[in-house]
Amino acid sequence: MEARRSQVVVGIDPDPARLWPAASERAPEARALLAGSLVAADRAAAEVAGRVSGTPPAARVAGDARFGTAAAVLAHCLALIDAAAPACVAAKPQFAFFEQLGFPGWLALEHVCARARAAGLLVIADAKRGDVPSTAAAYARALTGDPLAADAITANPLMGRDAVAPLLTAARARGAGAFLLVRTSNPGAADVLDLELAGGRPLWERLAEMTAELGAAAPGAPAAGDPGAGLADVGAVTGATAPEHLARMRELMPRTPFLLPGIGAQGGDVAALAPAFAPGRAAGLVSASRSIAGAGEARGGDPAEAARAEAERLRETAWSLV
Amino acid sequence: MEARRSQVVVGIDPDPARLWPAASERAPEARALLAGSLVAADRAAAEVAGRVSGTPPAARVAGDARFGTAAAVLAHCLALIDAAAPACVAAKPQFAFFEQLGFPGWLALEHVCARARAAGLLVIADAKRGDVPSTAAAYARALTGDPLAADAITANPLMGRDAVAPLLTAARARGAGAFLLVRTSNPGAADVLDLELAGGRPLWERLAEMTAELGAAAPGAPAAGDPGAGLADVGAVTGATAPEHLARMRELMPRTPFLLPGIGAQGGDVAALAPAFAPGRAAGLVSASRSIAGAGEARGGDPAEAARAEAERLRETAWSLV
Repeated sequence: MEARRSQVVVGIDPDPARLWPAASERAPEARALLAGSLVAADRAAAEVAGRVSGTPPAARVAGDARFGTAAAVLAHCLALIDAAAPACVAAKPQFAFFEQLGFPGWLALEHVCARARAAGLLVIADAKRGDVPSTAAAYARALTGDPLAADAITANPLMGRDAVAPLLTAARARGAGAFLLVRTSNPGAADVLDLELAGGRPLWERLAEMTAELGAAAPGAPAAGDPGAGLADVGAVTGATAPEHLARMRELMPRTPFLLPGIGAQGGDVAALAPAFAPGRAAGLVSASRSIAGAGEARGGDPAEAARAEAERLRETAWSLV
Repeated sequence: MEARRSQVVVGIDPDPARLWPAASERAPEARALLAGSLVAADRAAAEVAGRVSGTPPAARVAGDARFGTAAAVLAHCLALIDAAAPACVAAKPQFAFFEQLGFPGWLALEHVCARARAAGLLVIADAKRGDVPSTAAAYARALTGDPLAADAITANPLMGRDAVAPLLTAARARGAGAFLLVRTSNPGAADVLDLELAGGRPLWERLAEMTAELGAAAPGAPAAGDPGAGLADVGAVTGATAPEHLARMRELMPRTPFLLPGIGAQGGDVAALAPAFAPGRAAGLVSASRSIAGAGEARGGDPAEAARAEAERLRETAWSLV
């Protein structure tokens, strides 16, 4: 963050119906990336199979159409990363938008992560996984192992501590961390996360405590009494649409990095985030997706230039808060 | 269920380190399936790219190794499905175990779902997704659209009603349903799902009510007053390791299909599940993963024969409960 003077995370949520028209210029590059992986895999398949006898099963038509869409989506993502990267510290691909394209989408996602890394960005895998212990560890391997090699993942703590801990352990083994959902930015978060517990506190406060405890229990965790000890490797997703909660969250999670989604399109206001940065600039990541990728639609002009300008505006506003 | 006289769901959680040795006989078939898809995609890539000029980027070594593993995993899954299918009504692939193999794993998963369907099984995509509204809909498209075409998906309700509803709507558009996490089978479920709410009830009871409400609000939902009206299309994941909760769950969710994981390896006992079936046999799905796939390890003998016997034992026990 210090080197890039940025706390901005560019969210990558590509809707195939709303890709940048100009990104089609990048299509040959995207196609070459995908085709290269397929040719490599195909060659490996042939080797593994010892030259499969007979002809392969007929081409699956569905697979073909998805491949073209995946190439267009990847082209858009390459253009978005190149435009926004100079003002950002991380990229946050949203897995659903790639998974809906099937295995060609997952392959595109691998290239998106690689490009983000090549552009000097950290990668936050926004997959919101959570499952029983052995499965949670497999998810962490999927997201933080090669080739995605995410630096952090988002995770859902509903299933409890024994579901989250193996995910954290598996991520740590690859030098990665996690952000647990504590209070999300969608209006419906009030339905469950704001439920009042016996004793009068909302559920999200208990999740905040659990997040702080899991971070404090990590090997090499910052000492509780030392103000200069740094941050935990267990973060929290703290929706920026509820800024009145941020001071309380910081109180409950003094060493926890906050991932603050919901800026821009979802209604959050970056200037209201100051409490998140109480422990220092690195304590808050400001995430924006549609407000960056859709800046051109909102204001007119070239989408890449508008995205770059919006990411830079966010960067400057957030950096000036501390 | 009536046609197959079975409520058994075979969980498919393939650990690459614990595949059936004999499944290697199926490796040529698995490799041909994967290679066929890759050749099709590669051909499509070449067409889309108008014959990419120059040579493709060098083969990625990591991709190659994953491909061989994905083929071995797929071979195991084909053998498991063929062994267990006659005693089962559905297959439940656990996405983490495929995602950890990257895009070749996702491709293997597509073939697993296709094979399960060909064997006459419903497919339950055990991915436990949950996210903000637009993303939740994309996840539902990913899992219930072609080619996975799952008949139902598991979903996490932590983010609230507006995060779950679009997922349900998108699944319904493809004739699919969802099972929401209500009380899971891992010991840590007590950390969050059992938290006492103001008023004295545990959190899972509120999630149970929300699940029943979402099912009752569906287009064409069964009428509340009609005992023969059938089941809702919103189900609940109700961990079989806490059978003392089942009667209460049935009271709160009278029309809800229950997915009952945790049989066998996780410690659940199928005979304790009777309250789940109060509305009829179709009201409960009995899911078993390691107890079926690992039956040969536990008892000795051919793993496929042991798996078939264990699935049949579960089928008979569950079917005789009503």
